Amino acid sequence: MRSLTNYSKLCVHTQTNKPWTIEECITQYAAAGVSAISIWRHLLEGKDLSEIKELLIKNQMEVVALVRGGFFPSVDDKQRALVLEDNRLAMEQATALGAPQVVLVCGADPNQSLKVSRQQIKEGIIALLPQAEQLGVKLSIEPLHPMYAGDKSAISSLGQANDLCEEIDSPWVGVAIDVYHLWWDDQLEKEIYRCGKSDNIFAFHVCDWRVPTIDFLTDRGLMGEGCIPVKQIREWVEKAGFDGYNEVEVFSERLWAQDQKLYLEHIKKAYLNHS
Amino acid sequence: MRSLTNYSKLCVHTQTNKPWTIEECITQYAAAGVSAISIWRHLLEGKDLSEIKELLIKNQMEVVALVRGGFFPSVDDKQRALVLEDNRLAMEQATALGAPQVVLVCGADPNQSLKVSRQQIKEGIIALLPQAEQLGVKLSIEPLHPMYAGDKSAISSLGQANDLCEEIDSPWVGVAIDVYHLWWDDQLEKEIYRCGKSDNIFAFHVCDWRVPTIDFLTDRGLMGEGCIPVKQIREWVEKAGFDGYNEVEVFSERLWAQDQKLYLEHIKKAYLNHS
Repeated sequence: MRSLTNYSKLCVHTQTNKPWTIEECITQYAAAGVSAISIWRHLLEGKDLSEIKELLIKNQMEVVALVRGGFFPSVDDKQRALVLEDNRLAMEQATALGAPQVVLVCGADPNQSLKVSRQQIKEGIIALLPQAEQLGVKLSIEPLHPMYAGDKSAISSLGQANDLCEEIDSPWVGVAIDVYHLWWDDQLEKEIYRCGKSDNIFAFHVCDWRVPTIDFLTDRGLMGEGCIPVKQIREWVEKAGFDGYNEVEVFSERLWAQDQKLYLEHIKKAYLNHS
Repeated sequence: MRSLTNYSKLCVHTQTNKPWTIEECITQYAAAGVSAISIWRHLLEGKDLSEIKELLIKNQMEVVALVRGGFFPSVDDKQRALVLEDNRLAMEQATALGAPQVVLVCGADPNQSLKVSRQQIKEGIIALLPQAEQLGVKLSIEPLHPMYAGDKSAISSLGQANDLCEEIDSPWVGVAIDVYHLWWDDQLEKEIYRCGKSDNIFAFHVCDWRVPTIDFLTDRGLMGEGCIPVKQIREWVEKAGFDGYNEVEVFSERLWAQDQKLYLEHIKKAYLNHS
Protein backbone atom coordinates (compact mmCIF):
# COMPACT_ATOMS: atom_id res chain seq x y z
CA MET A 1 0.00 0.00 0.00
CA ARG A 2 1.25 3.46 -0.91
CA SER A 3 2.27 5.52 2.12
CA LEU A 4 1.44 9.17 2.66
CA THR A 5 4.67 11.18 2.50
CA ASN A 6 3.48 14.72 3.16
CA TYR A 7 0.61 16.73 4.58
CA SER A 8 -0.88 18.01 1.33
CA LYS A 9 -4.02 15.87 1.79
CA LEU A 10 -4.28 16.23 5.56
CA CYS A 11 -7.40 17.88 6.92
CA VAL A 12 -8.28 18.06 10.62
CA HIS A 13 -11.78 18.34 12.08
CA THR A 14 -12.08 21.10 14.67
CA GLN A 15 -13.78 18.59 16.99
CA THR A 16 -10.53 16.59 17.02
CA ASN A 17 -9.09 19.50 18.99
CA LYS A 18 -12.24 20.21 20.95
CA PRO A 19 -10.53 22.42 23.58
CA TRP A 20 -9.64 24.98 20.86
CA THR A 21 -11.82 27.82 19.56
CA ILE A 22 -12.34 28.14 15.82
CA GLU A 23 -9.70 30.87 15.71
CA GLU A 24 -7.20 28.68 17.57
CA CYS A 25 -7.89 25.74 15.25
CA ILE A 26 -7.27 27.87 12.15
CA THR A 27 -4.08 29.51 13.38
CA GLN A 28 -2.63 26.42 15.07
CA TYR A 29 -3.32 24.16 12.09
CA ALA A 30 -1.67 26.72 9.79
CA ALA A 31 1.33 27.05 12.11
CA ALA A 32 1.71 23.26 12.09
CA GLY A 33 1.62 23.02 8.31
CA VAL A 34 -1.92 21.68 8.10
CA SER A 35 -3.66 23.42 5.22
CA ALA A 36 -7.23 22.12 5.43
CA ILE A 37 -9.96 22.14 8.07
CA SER A 38 -13.45 20.73 8.56
CA ILE A 39 -15.46 23.03 10.76
CA TRP A 40 -17.99 21.95 13.37
CA ARG A 41 -20.91 24.32 13.49
CA HIS A 42 -21.20 24.87 17.24
CA LEU A 43 -17.91 26.78 17.06
CA LEU A 44 -19.62 29.36 14.85
CA GLU A 45 -22.27 30.37 17.35
CA GLY A 46 -22.12 34.12 17.99
CA LYS A 47 -19.35 34.56 15.41
CA ASP A 48 -19.20 36.93 12.44
CA LEU A 49 -18.70 34.47 9.57
CA SER A 50 -17.04 37.09 7.38
CA GLU A 51 -14.33 37.48 10.01
CA ILE A 52 -13.84 33.71 10.18
CA LYS A 53 -13.66 33.63 6.41
CA GLU A 54 -11.04 36.39 6.49
CA LEU A 55 -8.98 34.45 9.04
CA LEU A 56 -9.19 31.35 6.85
CA ILE A 57 -7.95 33.29 3.82
CA LYS A 58 -5.17 34.96 5.80
CA ASN A 59 -3.99 31.51 6.93
CA GLN A 60 -4.44 29.97 3.46
CA MET A 61 -6.69 27.40 5.09
CA GLU A 62 -8.99 25.38 2.84
CA VAL A 63 -12.37 24.40 4.25
CA VAL A 64 -13.19 20.81 3.33
CA ALA A 65 -16.60 20.49 5.00
CA LEU A 66 -19.04 22.04 7.39
CA VAL A 67 -20.11 19.51 10.03
CA ARG A 68 -22.96 18.75 10.51
CA GLY A 69 -26.48 18.82 9.12
CA GLY A 70 -29.02 16.02 8.95
CA PHE A 71 -31.07 14.62 11.85
CA PHE A 72 -34.14 14.44 9.61
CA PRO A 73 -36.38 11.78 11.22
CA SER A 74 -38.92 12.57 13.89
CA VAL A 75 -42.41 11.40 14.79
CA ASP A 76 -43.16 15.12 15.16
CA ASP A 77 -43.99 16.99 11.91
CA LYS A 78 -43.01 20.35 13.39
CA GLN A 79 -39.64 19.01 14.47
CA ARG A 80 -38.98 17.74 10.95
CA ALA A 81 -39.80 21.18 9.53
CA LEU A 82 -37.51 22.89 12.06
CA VAL A 83 -34.69 20.53 11.16
CA LEU A 84 -35.04 21.39 7.47
CA GLU A 85 -34.64 25.06 8.38
CA ASP A 86 -31.50 24.23 10.33
CA ASN A 87 -30.11 22.33 7.35
CA ARG A 88 -30.80 25.35 5.14
CA LEU A 89 -28.92 27.52 7.63
CA ALA A 90 -26.02 25.04 7.50
CA MET A 91 -25.87 25.38 3.71
CA GLU A 92 -25.80 29.19 4.04
CA GLN A 93 -23.00 28.94 6.61
CA ALA A 94 -21.10 26.61 4.28
CA THR A 95 -21.44 29.16 1.49
CA ALA A 96 -20.27 31.98 3.76
CA LEU A 97 -17.15 30.02 4.72
CA GLY A 98 -16.43 28.56 1.29
CA ALA A 99 -17.12 24.98 2.40
CA PRO A 100 -18.07 22.86 -0.62
CA GLN A 101 -20.11 20.39 1.41
CA VAL A 102 -22.24 19.85 4.50
CA VAL A 103 -21.82 16.45 6.15
CA LEU A 104 -25.14 14.85 7.09
CA VAL A 105 -25.59 12.75 10.20
CA CYS A 106 -28.93 11.45 9.02
CA GLY A 107 -30.68 10.83 12.35
CA ALA A 108 -33.14 8.25 13.68
CA ASP A 109 -36.15 8.45 15.97
CA PRO A 110 -36.42 5.43 18.30
CA ASN A 111 -40.19 6.00 18.50
CA GLN A 112 -40.73 4.86 14.94
CA SER A 113 -39.36 2.10 12.71
CA LEU A 114 -36.02 2.39 10.94
CA LYS A 115 -37.95 2.06 7.70
CA VAL A 116 -39.99 5.20 8.45
CA SER A 117 -36.87 7.05 9.62
CA ARG A 118 -35.12 6.11 6.37
CA GLN A 119 -38.05 7.40 4.31
CA GLN A 120 -37.97 10.70 6.23
CA ILE A 121 -34.23 11.00 5.64
CA LYS A 122 -34.82 10.60 1.92
CA GLU A 123 -37.63 13.15 1.90
CA GLY A 124 -35.53 15.57 3.97
CA ILE A 125 -32.58 15.43 1.58
CA ILE A 126 -34.83 15.80 -1.46
CA ALA A 127 -36.40 18.90 0.13
CA LEU A 128 -32.93 20.46 0.39
CA LEU A 129 -31.87 19.81 -3.19
CA PRO A 130 -33.06 23.10 -4.77
CA GLN A 131 -31.03 25.14 -2.27
CA ALA A 132 -28.03 22.82 -2.55
CA GLU A 133 -28.01 23.36 -6.31
CA GLN A 134 -28.62 27.09 -6.02
CA LEU A 135 -25.77 27.61 -3.54
CA GLY A 136 -23.51 24.95 -5.04
CA VAL A 137 -23.22 23.12 -1.73
CA LYS A 138 -22.91 19.34 -1.72
CA LEU A 139 -24.70 17.13 0.82
CA SER A 140 -22.68 14.17 2.10
CA ILE A 141 -24.56 11.27 3.64
CA GLU A 142 -22.36 9.78 6.37
CA PRO A 143 -23.44 6.25 7.31
CA LEU A 144 -22.85 5.83 11.05
CA HIS A 145 -21.86 2.69 12.95
CA PRO A 146 -24.83 0.41 13.73
CA MET A 147 -24.36 1.19 17.43
CA TYR A 148 -25.92 4.58 16.61
CA ALA A 149 -29.00 3.16 14.83
CA GLY A 150 -31.22 3.83 17.86
CA ASP A 151 -31.09 7.61 17.77
CA LYS A 152 -28.34 9.01 15.55
CA SER A 153 -28.50 7.38 12.14
CA ALA A 154 -30.88 4.96 10.47
CA ILE A 155 -28.23 4.74 7.73
CA SER A 156 -25.76 2.19 9.09
CA SER A 157 -23.80 0.91 6.10
CA LEU A 158 -22.24 2.23 2.93
CA GLY A 159 -24.57 -0.04 0.99
CA GLN A 160 -27.58 1.78 2.43
CA ALA A 161 -26.02 5.19 1.76
CA ASN A 162 -25.32 4.13 -1.83
CA ASP A 163 -28.90 2.94 -2.24
CA LEU A 164 -30.11 6.31 -0.98
CA CYS A 165 -27.80 8.26 -3.31
CA GLU A 166 -28.97 6.23 -6.28
CA GLU A 167 -32.62 6.76 -5.38
CA ILE A 168 -32.12 10.52 -5.00
CA ASP A 169 -29.85 10.64 -8.05
CA SER A 170 -28.47 14.17 -7.77
CA PRO A 171 -24.89 15.38 -8.40
CA TRP A 172 -25.26 17.34 -5.13
CA VAL A 173 -25.73 14.21 -3.01
CA GLY A 174 -22.94 11.74 -2.19
CA VAL A 175 -21.34 9.98 0.77
CA ALA A 176 -18.79 10.63 3.50
CA ILE A 177 -16.85 7.44 4.22
CA ASP A 178 -15.63 7.22 7.82
CA VAL A 179 -13.46 4.23 8.67
CA TYR A 180 -14.72 4.24 12.28
CA HIS A 181 -18.28 3.59 11.20
CA LEU A 182 -17.68 1.14 8.39
CA TRP A 183 -14.48 -0.88 8.93
CA TRP A 184 -16.27 -4.03 10.20
CA ASP A 185 -18.40 -4.48 7.06
CA ASP A 186 -17.39 -7.30 4.72
CA GLN A 187 -19.18 -5.45 1.90
CA LEU A 188 -17.11 -2.28 2.36
CA GLU A 189 -14.61 -2.65 -0.48
CA LYS A 190 -17.35 -3.52 -2.96
CA GLU A 191 -19.53 -0.62 -1.83
CA ILE A 192 -16.61 1.84 -2.03
CA TYR A 193 -16.10 0.93 -5.70
CA ARG A 194 -19.85 1.20 -6.25
CA CYS A 195 -20.03 4.83 -5.07
CA GLY A 196 -16.72 5.63 -6.71
CA LYS A 197 -18.21 4.74 -10.08
CA SER A 198 -20.83 7.47 -9.65
CA ASP A 199 -18.26 10.01 -8.34
CA ASN A 200 -20.23 9.91 -5.12
CA ILE A 201 -17.34 9.82 -2.64
CA PHE A 202 -17.37 13.35 -1.24
CA ALA A 203 -15.32 12.80 1.92
CA PHE A 204 -13.00 10.35 3.68
CA HIS A 205 -12.60 10.38 7.48
CA VAL A 206 -9.91 8.56 9.44
CA CYS A 207 -9.32 7.59 13.06
CA ASP A 208 -9.09 4.18 14.80
CA TRP A 209 -11.17 1.69 16.83
CA ARG A 210 -9.65 0.97 20.22
CA VAL A 211 -9.86 -2.47 21.85
CA PRO A 212 -11.54 -2.25 24.24
CA THR A 213 -13.64 0.80 23.44
CA ILE A 214 -15.15 2.12 26.66
CA ASP A 215 -17.45 4.91 25.54
CA PHE A 216 -20.01 5.08 22.74
CA LEU A 217 -19.01 8.61 21.70
CA THR A 218 -15.67 9.80 23.01
CA ASP A 219 -13.20 6.93 23.00
CA ARG A 220 -11.95 6.94 19.42
CA GLY A 221 -8.30 6.26 18.76
CA LEU A 222 -5.72 8.06 16.68
CA MET A 223 -4.72 6.07 13.59
CA GLY A 224 -2.48 3.20 14.75
CA GLU A 225 -4.03 2.98 18.19
CA GLY A 226 -6.65 0.42 17.19
CA CYS A 227 -7.58 -2.35 14.78
CA ILE A 228 -8.94 -0.51 11.72
CA PRO A 229 -6.94 -1.18 8.53
CA VAL A 230 -6.90 2.54 7.68
CA LYS A 231 -4.27 2.30 4.94
CA GLN A 232 -6.14 -0.55 3.28
CA ILE A 233 -9.40 1.38 3.26
CA ARG A 234 -7.66 4.53 1.97
CA GLU A 235 -6.25 2.44 -0.86
CA TRP A 236 -9.76 1.24 -1.80
CA VAL A 237 -11.10 4.80 -1.68
CA GLU A 238 -8.27 6.08 -3.90
CA LYS A 239 -8.70 3.14 -6.27
CA ALA A 240 -12.36 4.18 -6.49
CA GLY A 241 -11.22 7.56 -7.82
CA PHE A 242 -11.28 9.73 -4.70
CA ASP A 243 -8.47 12.29 -4.57
CA GLY A 244 -9.74 14.60 -1.83
CA TYR A 245 -8.53 15.11 1.71
CA ASN A 246 -8.00 12.53 4.43
CA GLU A 247 -9.90 14.11 7.31
CA VAL A 248 -8.75 13.27 10.83
CA GLU A 249 -11.85 13.10 13.01
CA VAL A 250 -11.14 11.83 16.51
CA PHE A 251 -13.40 12.30 19.56
CA SER A 252 -11.52 11.32 22.68
CA GLU A 253 -11.68 12.55 26.26
CA ARG A 254 -8.25 11.00 26.71
CA LEU A 255 -6.72 12.95 23.81
CA TRP A 256 -8.63 16.17 24.52
CA ALA A 257 -6.99 16.15 27.97
CA GLN A 258 -3.53 16.40 26.38
CA ASP A 259 -1.69 19.59 25.41
CA GLN A 260 -3.36 20.25 22.06
CA LYS A 261 -0.25 21.58 20.29
CA LEU A 262 1.71 18.45 21.19
CA TYR A 263 -1.30 16.33 20.27
CA LEU A 264 -1.43 17.97 16.83
CA GLU A 265 2.15 16.83 16.27
CA HIS A 266 1.09 13.27 17.27
CA ILE A 267 -1.76 13.53 14.80
CA LYS A 268 0.69 14.44 12.04
CA LYS A 269 2.95 11.48 12.90
CA ALA A 270 0.01 9.07 13.07
CA TYR A 271 -1.22 10.44 9.76
CA LEU A 272 2.03 9.59 7.95
CA ASN A 273 2.66 6.29 9.73
CA HIS A 274 -0.78 4.75 10.01
CA SER A 275 -3.15 6.22 7.41
CA MET B 1 -48.51 -9.67 14.24
CA ARG B 2 -49.51 -12.71 16.26
CA SER B 3 -49.04 -12.25 20.01
CA LEU B 4 -47.58 -14.80 22.37
CA THR B 5 -50.33 -15.99 24.72
CA ASN B 6 -48.50 -18.44 26.96
CA TYR B 7 -45.06 -19.48 28.14
CA SER B 8 -44.70 -22.70 26.19
CA LYS B 9 -41.94 -21.21 23.99
CA LEU B 10 -40.27 -19.15 26.71
CA CYS B 11 -36.67 -19.96 27.52
CA VAL B 12 -34.48 -17.89 29.84
CA HIS B 13 -30.69 -17.65 29.73
CA THR B 14 -29.08 -18.15 33.12
CA GLN B 15 -27.00 -15.00 32.50
CA THR B 16 -30.26 -13.02 32.44
CA ASN B 17 -30.46 -13.79 36.17
CA LYS B 18 -26.74 -13.50 36.80
CA PRO B 19 -27.06 -13.31 40.62
CA TRP B 20 -28.51 -16.85 40.70
CA THR B 21 -26.59 -20.14 40.81
CA ILE B 22 -27.44 -22.83 38.26
CA GLU B 23 -29.54 -24.61 40.90
CA GLU B 24 -31.46 -21.42 41.69
CA CYS B 25 -32.07 -20.74 37.99
CA ILE B 26 -33.48 -24.25 37.44
CA THR B 27 -35.75 -24.28 40.50
CA GLN B 28 -36.88 -20.65 40.24
CA TYR B 29 -37.67 -20.92 36.53
CA ALA B 30 -39.66 -24.10 37.18
CA ALA B 31 -41.54 -22.47 40.08
CA ALA B 32 -42.41 -19.54 37.81
CA GLY B 33 -43.75 -21.76 35.04
CA VAL B 34 -40.75 -21.36 32.75
CA SER B 35 -39.96 -24.75 31.25
CA ALA B 36 -36.77 -24.11 29.26
CA ILE B 37 -33.31 -22.83 30.06
CA SER B 38 -30.11 -21.93 28.22
CA ILE B 39 -27.12 -22.56 30.44
CA TRP B 40 -23.99 -20.44 30.62
CA ARG B 41 -20.92 -22.57 31.12
CA HIS B 42 -19.20 -20.65 33.92
CA LEU B 43 -22.05 -21.77 36.20
CA LEU B 44 -20.92 -25.37 35.68
CA GLU B 45 -17.43 -24.90 37.09
CA GLY B 46 -16.82 -27.34 39.94
CA LYS B 47 -20.25 -28.93 39.47
CA ASP B 48 -21.15 -32.57 38.99
CA LEU B 49 -23.00 -32.47 35.68
CA SER B 50 -24.98 -35.62 36.45
CA GLU B 51 -26.44 -33.88 39.49
CA ILE B 52 -27.35 -30.84 37.40
CA LYS B 53 -28.91 -33.15 34.84
CA GLU B 54 -30.92 -34.83 37.61
CA LEU B 55 -32.14 -31.46 38.87
CA LEU B 56 -33.17 -30.51 35.34
CA ILE B 57 -35.17 -33.73 34.96
CA LYS B 58 -36.76 -33.38 38.37
CA ASN B 59 -37.92 -29.88 37.41
CA GLN B 60 -39.00 -30.94 33.90
CA MET B 61 -36.67 -28.29 32.56
CA GLU B 62 -35.66 -28.49 28.90
CA VAL B 63 -32.16 -27.29 28.01
CA VAL B 64 -32.25 -25.25 24.80
CA ALA B 65 -28.55 -24.43 24.50
CA LEU B 66 -25.21 -24.42 26.20
CA VAL B 67 -23.59 -20.97 26.02
CA ARG B 68 -20.91 -20.51 24.84
CA GLY B 69 -18.18 -21.89 22.61
CA GLY B 70 -16.31 -20.22 19.80
CA PHE B 71 -13.51 -17.61 20.14
CA PHE B 72 -11.57 -19.33 17.38
CA PRO B 73 -9.27 -16.60 15.98
CA SER B 74 -5.86 -15.83 17.35
CA VAL B 75 -2.48 -14.84 15.96
CA ASP B 76 -1.13 -17.56 18.27
CA ASP B 77 -1.31 -21.14 16.93
CA LYS B 78 -1.20 -22.64 20.43
CA GLN B 79 -4.07 -20.49 21.56
CA ARG B 80 -6.16 -21.64 18.60
CA ALA B 81 -5.45 -25.29 19.50
CA LEU B 82 -6.39 -24.66 23.15
CA VAL B 83 -9.63 -23.05 22.08
CA LEU B 84 -10.55 -26.08 19.97
CA GLU B 85 -10.09 -28.26 23.06
CA ASP B 86 -12.37 -25.95 25.02
CA ASN B 87 -15.01 -26.20 22.30
CA ARG B 88 -14.77 -30.00 22.44
CA LEU B 89 -15.29 -29.80 26.19
CA ALA B 90 -18.33 -27.61 25.60
CA MET B 91 -19.82 -30.24 23.30
CA GLU B 92 -19.24 -32.92 25.94
CA GLN B 93 -20.89 -30.73 28.58
CA ALA B 94 -23.81 -30.16 26.21
CA THR B 95 -24.18 -33.91 25.80
CA ALA B 96 -24.03 -34.47 29.55
CA LEU B 97 -26.82 -31.93 30.12
CA GLY B 98 -28.94 -32.91 27.13
CA ALA B 99 -28.41 -29.57 25.37
CA PRO B 100 -28.92 -30.00 21.62
CA GLN B 101 -26.65 -27.10 20.68
CA VAL B 102 -23.62 -25.03 21.67
CA VAL B 103 -23.87 -21.34 20.81
CA LEU B 104 -20.70 -19.98 19.22
CA VAL B 105 -19.43 -16.47 19.84
CA CYS B 106 -16.99 -16.70 17.00
CA GLY B 107 -14.24 -14.36 18.23
CA ALA B 108 -11.85 -11.89 16.60
CA ASP B 109 -8.21 -11.01 17.18
CA PRO B 110 -7.52 -7.27 16.78
CA ASN B 111 -3.90 -8.09 15.89
CA GLN B 112 -4.87 -9.54 12.53
CA SER B 113 -7.34 -8.66 9.77
CA LEU B 114 -11.01 -9.54 9.98
CA LYS B 115 -10.47 -11.62 6.85
CA VAL B 116 -7.89 -13.81 8.59
CA SER B 117 -10.07 -14.05 11.70
CA ARG B 118 -13.00 -15.16 9.54
CA GLN B 119 -10.88 -17.83 7.87
CA GLN B 120 -9.78 -19.13 11.29
CA ILE B 121 -13.41 -19.23 12.44
CA LYS B 122 -14.30 -21.34 9.45
CA GLU B 123 -11.36 -23.69 10.02
CA GLY B 124 -12.20 -23.95 13.71
CA ILE B 125 -15.80 -24.93 13.08
CA ILE B 126 -14.80 -27.45 10.42
CA ALA B 127 -12.35 -29.03 12.88
CA LEU B 128 -15.23 -29.56 15.33
CA LEU B 129 -17.60 -31.22 12.85
CA PRO B 130 -16.65 -34.87 13.43
CA GLN B 131 -17.30 -34.58 17.17
CA ALA B 132 -20.49 -32.56 16.60
CA GLU B 133 -21.81 -35.33 14.39
CA GLN B 134 -20.63 -38.08 16.72
CA LEU B 135 -22.26 -36.49 19.79
CA GLY B 136 -25.27 -35.12 17.93
CA VAL B 137 -24.57 -31.59 19.13
CA LYS B 138 -25.37 -28.66 16.85
CA LEU B 139 -23.09 -25.63 16.54
CA SER B 140 -24.90 -22.30 16.29
CA ILE B 141 -23.00 -19.36 14.82
CA GLU B 142 -24.22 -16.21 16.54
CA PRO B 143 -23.39 -13.07 14.56
CA LEU B 144 -22.59 -10.31 17.06
CA HIS B 145 -23.25 -6.58 16.75
CA PRO B 146 -20.55 -4.76 14.73
CA MET B 147 -19.52 -2.93 17.92
CA TYR B 148 -17.91 -6.25 18.93
CA ALA B 149 -15.94 -6.73 15.70
CA GLY B 150 -12.70 -5.63 17.36
CA ASP B 151 -12.31 -8.54 19.72
CA LYS B 152 -15.47 -10.64 20.12
CA SER B 153 -16.81 -11.56 16.70
CA ALA B 154 -15.56 -11.09 13.17
CA ILE B 155 -19.02 -12.32 12.13
CA SER B 156 -21.16 -9.17 12.34
CA SER B 157 -24.23 -9.81 10.22
CA LEU B 158 -26.64 -12.61 9.48
CA GLY B 159 -25.53 -12.42 5.84
CA GLN B 160 -21.99 -13.32 6.88
CA ALA B 161 -23.20 -16.12 9.15
CA ASN B 162 -25.30 -17.49 6.30
CA ASP B 163 -22.32 -17.34 3.93
CA LEU B 164 -20.27 -19.27 6.48
CA CYS B 165 -22.99 -21.92 6.96
CA GLU B 166 -23.29 -22.40 3.22
CA GLU B 167 -19.52 -22.74 2.83
CA ILE B 168 -19.32 -25.31 5.65
CA ASP B 169 -22.50 -27.01 4.50
CA SER B 170 -23.21 -29.33 7.43
CA PRO B 171 -26.55 -30.16 9.06
CA TRP B 172 -24.73 -29.62 12.39
CA VAL B 173 -23.96 -25.95 11.71
CA GLY B 174 -26.56 -23.19 11.72
CA VAL B 175 -27.21 -19.75 13.21
CA ALA B 176 -28.45 -18.17 16.43
CA ILE B 177 -30.42 -15.01 15.60
CA ASP B 178 -30.24 -12.41 18.39
CA VAL B 179 -32.34 -9.28 17.87
CA TYR B 180 -29.86 -7.18 19.89
CA HIS B 181 -27.06 -7.86 17.43
CA LEU B 182 -28.99 -7.69 14.18
CA TRP B 183 -32.00 -5.37 14.44
CA TRP B 184 -30.33 -2.40 12.66
CA ASP B 185 -29.60 -4.35 9.45
CA ASP B 186 -31.78 -3.53 6.44
CA GLN B 187 -30.91 -6.98 5.02
CA LEU B 188 -32.20 -8.82 8.11
CA GLU B 189 -35.60 -9.98 6.86
CA LYS B 190 -34.11 -11.26 3.60
CA GLU B 191 -31.28 -13.07 5.41
CA ILE B 192 -33.71 -14.67 7.89
CA TYR B 193 -35.65 -16.21 5.01
CA ARG B 194 -32.37 -17.31 3.43
CA CYS B 195 -31.27 -19.34 6.45
CA GLY B 196 -34.80 -20.54 7.05
CA LYS B 197 -34.79 -22.20 3.64
CA SER B 198 -31.83 -24.37 4.70
CA ASP B 199 -33.36 -25.12 8.14
CA ASN B 200 -30.38 -23.27 9.57
CA ILE B 201 -32.15 -21.24 12.27
CA PHE B 202 -31.11 -23.05 15.43
CA ALA B 203 -31.94 -20.35 18.00
CA PHE B 204 -33.75 -17.04 18.49
CA HIS B 205 -32.70 -14.61 21.26
CA VAL B 206 -34.73 -11.61 22.43
CA CYS B 207 -34.08 -8.48 24.50
CA ASP B 208 -34.11 -4.77 23.62
CA TRP B 209 -31.80 -1.87 22.69
CA ARG B 210 -32.07 1.04 25.10
CA VAL B 211 -31.75 4.65 23.96
CA PRO B 212 -29.30 5.77 25.13
CA THR B 213 -27.24 2.65 25.73
CA ILE B 214 -24.49 3.48 28.20
CA ASP B 215 -22.40 0.31 28.35
CA PHE B 216 -21.06 -1.94 25.61
CA LEU B 217 -21.86 -5.15 27.49
CA THR B 218 -24.29 -4.77 30.37
CA ASP B 219 -26.97 -2.25 29.46
CA ARG B 220 -29.42 -4.34 27.49
CA GLY B 221 -33.12 -3.75 27.94
CA LEU B 222 -36.01 -6.08 28.60
CA MET B 223 -38.33 -6.37 25.61
CA GLY B 224 -40.36 -3.15 25.40
CA GLU B 225 -37.69 -1.02 27.03
CA GLY B 226 -36.02 -0.06 23.78
CA CYS B 227 -36.41 0.41 20.04
CA ILE B 228 -36.04 -3.12 18.62
CA PRO B 229 -39.14 -4.35 16.74
CA VAL B 230 -38.96 -7.71 18.54
CA LYS B 231 -42.43 -8.93 17.49
CA GLN B 232 -41.72 -8.04 13.87
CA ILE B 233 -38.45 -9.97 13.87
CA ARG B 234 -40.10 -12.96 15.62
CA GLU B 235 -42.72 -12.94 12.87
CA TRP B 236 -40.01 -13.11 10.20
CA VAL B 237 -38.24 -15.93 12.04
CA GLU B 238 -41.48 -17.93 12.37
CA LYS B 239 -42.37 -17.25 8.73
CA ALA B 240 -38.93 -18.69 7.88
CA GLY B 241 -40.01 -21.96 9.54
CA PHE B 242 -38.50 -21.65 13.01
CA ASP B 243 -40.68 -23.10 15.76
CA GLY B 244 -38.19 -23.32 18.61
CA TYR B 245 -37.92 -21.31 21.81
CA ASN B 246 -37.77 -17.55 22.24
CA GLU B 247 -34.76 -17.19 24.50
CA VAL B 248 -34.63 -14.17 26.79
CA GLU B 249 -31.00 -13.09 27.03
CA VAL B 250 -30.55 -9.80 28.88
CA PHE B 251 -27.29 -8.54 30.42
CA SER B 252 -28.01 -5.56 32.63
CA GLU B 253 -26.38 -4.24 35.78
CA ARG B 254 -29.61 -2.32 36.35
CA LEU B 255 -31.80 -5.43 36.20
CA TRP B 256 -29.33 -7.69 38.01
CA ALA B 257 -29.57 -5.26 40.94
CA GLN B 258 -33.31 -5.99 41.30
CA ASP B 259 -34.94 -8.78 43.31
CA GLN B 260 -34.51 -11.63 40.84
CA LYS B 261 -37.84 -13.34 41.61
CA LEU B 262 -39.75 -10.12 40.97
CA TYR B 263 -37.61 -9.49 37.91
CA LEU B 264 -38.52 -12.94 36.55
CA GLU B 265 -42.19 -11.93 36.75
CA HIS B 266 -41.32 -8.74 34.80
CA ILE B 267 -39.57 -10.89 32.23
CA LYS B 268 -42.72 -12.99 31.82
CA LYS B 269 -44.89 -9.89 31.36
CA ALA B 270 -42.46 -8.35 28.88
CA TYR B 271 -42.35 -11.66 27.03
CA LEU B 272 -46.12 -11.72 26.46
CA ASN B 273 -46.51 -7.98 25.82
CA HIS B 274 -43.44 -7.09 23.79
CA SER B 275 -42.02 -10.16 22.07
